[in-house]
Amino acid sequence: MGSNAKRTRQPVTPFAPATQDQLLAIRVNAGIAELAQSERFAAAEEDMVEAIVEGVGQFAAGEFAPLNRIGDLEGAVLENGVVRLPAGFAEAYASYVEQGWNAIASPMEFGGQGLPFTLACNVLENLGTANMAFNLLPMLSVGAIEALEHHGSAALQAKYLPKLVSGEWSGTMNLTEPQAGSDVGALRATAVPITEGEHAGSYRIAGQKIYITWGEHELAGNIIHLVLARLPDAPEGSAGISLFVVPKYHVKADGSLGPRNDLRCVSLEHKLGINASPTCVMSYGDNGECIGELVGAENRGLMAMFTMMNNARINVGNQGVQIGERALQQAMHYARERVQSARAGSPDRAPVAIIEHPDVRRMLLRMKALTEAARALLYYTAGQVDRGTLGNDTAKRRGDVLVPMVKAWGTDTGIEIAGLGVQIHGGMGFIEETGAAQHYRDARIAPIYEGTNGIQAADLVTRKLGYDGGGIYAALMADIARDCVEEPALVALAQDCTAIAEWMRDTASLDDRLAGSVAFCTMSAVAVAGWQMVLQARAVAAGSAPALAATKPVTTRYFLDHVVPETRGQKAAATGGARLLYALSAEQLAS
Amino acid sequence: MGSNAKRTRQPVTPFAPATQDQLLAIRVNAGIAELAQSERFAAAEEDMVEAIVEGVGQFAAGEFAPLNRIGDLEGAVLENGVVRLPAGFAEAYASYVEQGWNAIASPMEFGGQGLPFTLACNVLENLGTANMAFNLLPMLSVGAIEALEHHGSAALQAKYLPKLVSGEWSGTMNLTEPQAGSDVGALRATAVPITEGEHAGSYRIAGQKIYITWGEHELAGNIIHLVLARLPDAPEGSAGISLFVVPKYHVKADGSLGPRNDLRCVSLEHKLGINASPTCVMSYGDNGECIGELVGAENRGLMAMFTMMNNARINVGNQGVQIGERALQQAMHYARERVQSARAGSPDRAPVAIIEHPDVRRMLLRMKALTEAARALLYYTAGQVDRGTLGNDTAKRRGDVLVPMVKAWGTDTGIEIAGLGVQIHGGMGFIEETGAAQHYRDARIAPIYEGTNGIQAADLVTRKLGYDGGGIYAALMADIARDCVEEPALVALAQDCTAIAEWMRDTASLDDRLAGSVAFCTMSAVAVAGWQMVLQARAVAAGSAPALAATKPVTTRYFLDHVVPETRGQKAAATGGARLLYALSAEQLAS
Repeated sequence: MGSNAKRTRQPVTPFAPATQDQLLAIRVNAGIAELAQSERFAAAEEDMVEAIVEGVGQFAAGEFAPLNRIGDLEGAVLENGVVRLPAGFAEAYASYVEQGWNAIASPMEFGGQGLPFTLACNVLENLGTANMAFNLLPMLSVGAIEALEHHGSAALQAKYLPKLVSGEWSGTMNLTEPQAGSDVGALRATAVPITEGEHAGSYRIAGQKIYITWGEHELAGNIIHLVLARLPDAPEGSAGISLFVVPKYHVKADGSLGPRNDLRCVSLEHKLGINASPTCVMSYGDNGECIGELVGAENRGLMAMFTMMNNARINVGNQGVQIGERALQQAMHYARERVQSARAGSPDRAPVAIIEHPDVRRMLLRMKALTEAARALLYYTAGQVDRGTLGNDTAKRRGDVLVPMVKAWGTDTGIEIAGLGVQIHGGMGFIEETGAAQHYRDARIAPIYEGTNGIQAADLVTRKLGYDGGGIYAALMADIARDCVEEPALVALAQDCTAIAEWMRDTASLDDRLAGSVAFCTMSAVAVAGWQMVLQARAVAAGSAPALAATKPVTTRYFLDHVVPETRGQKAAATGGARLLYALSAEQLAS
Repeated sequence: MGSNAKRTRQPVTPFAPATQDQLLAIRVNAGIAELAQSERFAAAEEDMVEAIVEGVGQFAAGEFAPLNRIGDLEGAVLENGVVRLPAGFAEAYASYVEQGWNAIASPMEFGGQGLPFTLACNVLENLGTANMAFNLLPMLSVGAIEALEHHGSAALQAKYLPKLVSGEWSGTMNLTEPQAGSDVGALRATAVPITEGEHAGSYRIAGQKIYITWGEHELAGNIIHLVLARLPDAPEGSAGISLFVVPKYHVKADGSLGPRNDLRCVSLEHKLGINASPTCVMSYGDNGECIGELVGAENRGLMAMFTMMNNARINVGNQGVQIGERALQQAMHYARERVQSARAGSPDRAPVAIIEHPDVRRMLLRMKALTEAARALLYYTAGQVDRGTLGNDTAKRRGDVLVPMVKAWGTDTGIEIAGLGVQIHGGMGFIEETGAAQHYRDARIAPIYEGTNGIQAADLVTRKLGYDGGGIYAALMADIARDCVEEPALVALAQDCTAIAEWMRDTASLDDRLAGSVAFCTMSAVAVAGWQMVLQARAVAAGSAPALAATKPVTTRYFLDHVVPETRGQKAAATGGARLLYALSAEQLAS
């Protein structure tokens, strides 16, 4: 607490992984036992699941969590083209690779463990709760692995996947350019086929990309950039975009590293949060010698990106759970330590820990209920993705419908929880030393990247709602109504959602749908999350998770009795239509 | 946009004062014409009001706004006991004093203009919209002036008020100590009477105070600290606290400055936002020679503080309006400049400014509606305060009831608006260069200081709701129902509030009331704000504010059709009671 406080390194609040609640969600919401009955996921039996969840939780608490504050204070720094991370990051990443956490859900033929996406979610949840900024490094690598796994040739896979899967190399996604953000189709980076010389068959890449997460660093031996660019004479817009793999260092035929490719990090962004994650402006081909290889077919790059996008969006929704859990633990710790004022109405005038005061307790219970509900929704969705991988197309499509809910509501909820965490700290919440403010800052990126939450909601009402003529969504809400007859508020919410979906499908104009999309997405997410909490509470009551026997009924009750009715209040916004939004011209609105 | 971006000084988005909407609120919600009919406020006639609102708006835009970003980037810095502000702050403050803006509502006998509090609110609104951190300097001085005006002896007033009123000197409030935050009664600073020597009749002050806003700086010639401390043998708790005036420099009989008092700024806090406002740890009496004078009666210090607290809380609620207006203007500017994607469903595939997209437009309209509604509530409350000053005790008590609503809902709303502003910027919102993130950071302090929003809500349900046996609150809601018969959602909200208030008064336990207090406070505030928006829209329709003829009906409609129904969704939370909050022990909740 001094003028030079920014330089001091204070211990962070102790972080304990939420192992029990994670195991409950993996069992009840993802249905891991059912998944393990398949040949493909046979390894995911009970003991293995527990070993992974406990193991990665301990690893994250021991190795990643202690670097969270120093990462925020010192951040990533660019010096002469090299990105430096605070002390400890390189060692922690090496330890992460050595312990094999990067390989959980990757294909076994490339050294992965072939386990369900559900468990990869758990690895990311634990790492990101410990250190959201650091976790973006493995999270982006997973995206590169998936792109090559699904769209790369056998040769590209053999060349890049083993070391990406192990984590020795990391990966990035290069979509955005200054004029091409949400509208990826507006990008201008170019790729020109090379017809002669040692790189014949490859492409010469040129262009500048922004917001490249972990685009440059020295923690991994190589960085495999996946870059969207246009071939000469490619069609305009999103139909003319191709995907290229562009390594930082060329990889020789024997797998060893060759010379450096013609690409560089021009600068780092100065951001509101996630300061330890270098957000790079990347320049490709300054000297006309940046070499890349085509992934998949020409002009099909955006399609390739879309295959990974669902999982990537779930992974960002996961960050809402992460920041929620971390902010919750921090606030809970503070509220039990901080003594202030006597209990209102008590004859005993001795001051008590603030957790005893009703409104502080309300905020803590709300934080806990929201975090658990977002987690339940996350793992339910992950379980649907895994069923899709096993060939259940209905589950796959249900997973697709859930993606915008996980991403948008999960990240909005992360911000709400982080804000409550600050509030519980009182004045200390506004002082950076406590760390509460870091969560509030870090959380703010998640509703923006990987498709803004507005784009998630648009995806729900313009694409996903139409799956099977609306049948996928309708069946989801019908399941809720069927399973929760004894919870009238939740049934009413599911019925509201069903009616709004029908109105959107049959009556509403495109503008009307978009105008109500965010409210509708929130309502849908809360309905599903409430349902999954009900299922958790039942499982606990049935004795399957004794550790949570006391708490789960209470957090579930809070969610059903407070959050669900609140959310029903958004029905007017979901169905109000677009007329009012366009009642004023842009000039009038801005006047 | 580079690694050294933190050092660059980029122009801020142009800021234009919200003069027309302010004038509307001052006329319709504060009812300035009626105030000007009194002898005391006779000067507040139409031309004068317009001159002030337009004048301070221009001053704020010209002098305070350009310093907002540099203030955030460079912040206040402590060097050898001296607090340095970025270049330009001293000149802007001198200009502020020279133009007489500090004296608007202060007593004429000390050089003030004796104008209504309503207009002082407008001065703060404009200054704070331009520069929230800088505006805390005048805002704290106002508090010191009010304390001395109401509780100081004639001698103290003569000694300190003229230069505080002019702004040549500034003031501070010293309440908080590390163990005494929300529980002011736990403070330990001491004051020992001096019986001999040149300071006989004064007190020797000793202790450390934290969170002292603008506690040290060189912009004013002297700093007049108002310090709460305990006399020897004072009763324990809040009944044993006295108020002292402790100048940075002693003031001689002839009004000139004497030697420096024994007090110093030990350190500055490193905060999430409002970086240009030095938040000081102050140490009094390190050498046993800190001299202060008693303000008011012994052991009555907290009562003296409470008199100023209502206005201070309104002034913090005002900050919600300020940050809302600034974030709105910034987002509106960006949304009209940023071109991205074609309009959904349009045959024209040319990309458009993002303000044309439905969800962006929804966010902008929401920001505008919330800002205007918070402003309407603010000025309505200020008008009640001014009627109280004129002797209308019912209006005074209505103003008291409104204070927690203005403070809590106003500041919560400021955060929501700032968050929407970040979101509209997409990726650029998370990059500090745009300035959107600064508003999100700055806004976060307002729900915390001057009594957390939880404390505001507790004040409403445990004290204010009981005024006149509940009659003051009931009459307020009855006015809403009477004036808004054609707005059924608003009437229903007011009826909900009335019913909840009756339940809280007649049935609910203290814990039940506190458990529902925040939801109830929000519902009450939205009911009043919606009512005041309806009155504005009617006045506009009657032709009294042609500039807003197009926009006001739309923002009012949005508030009534979206915000009001949403808020009704909090009824369950307001009436749910405390049982669920205490269903778990603190240990279980934290498990």
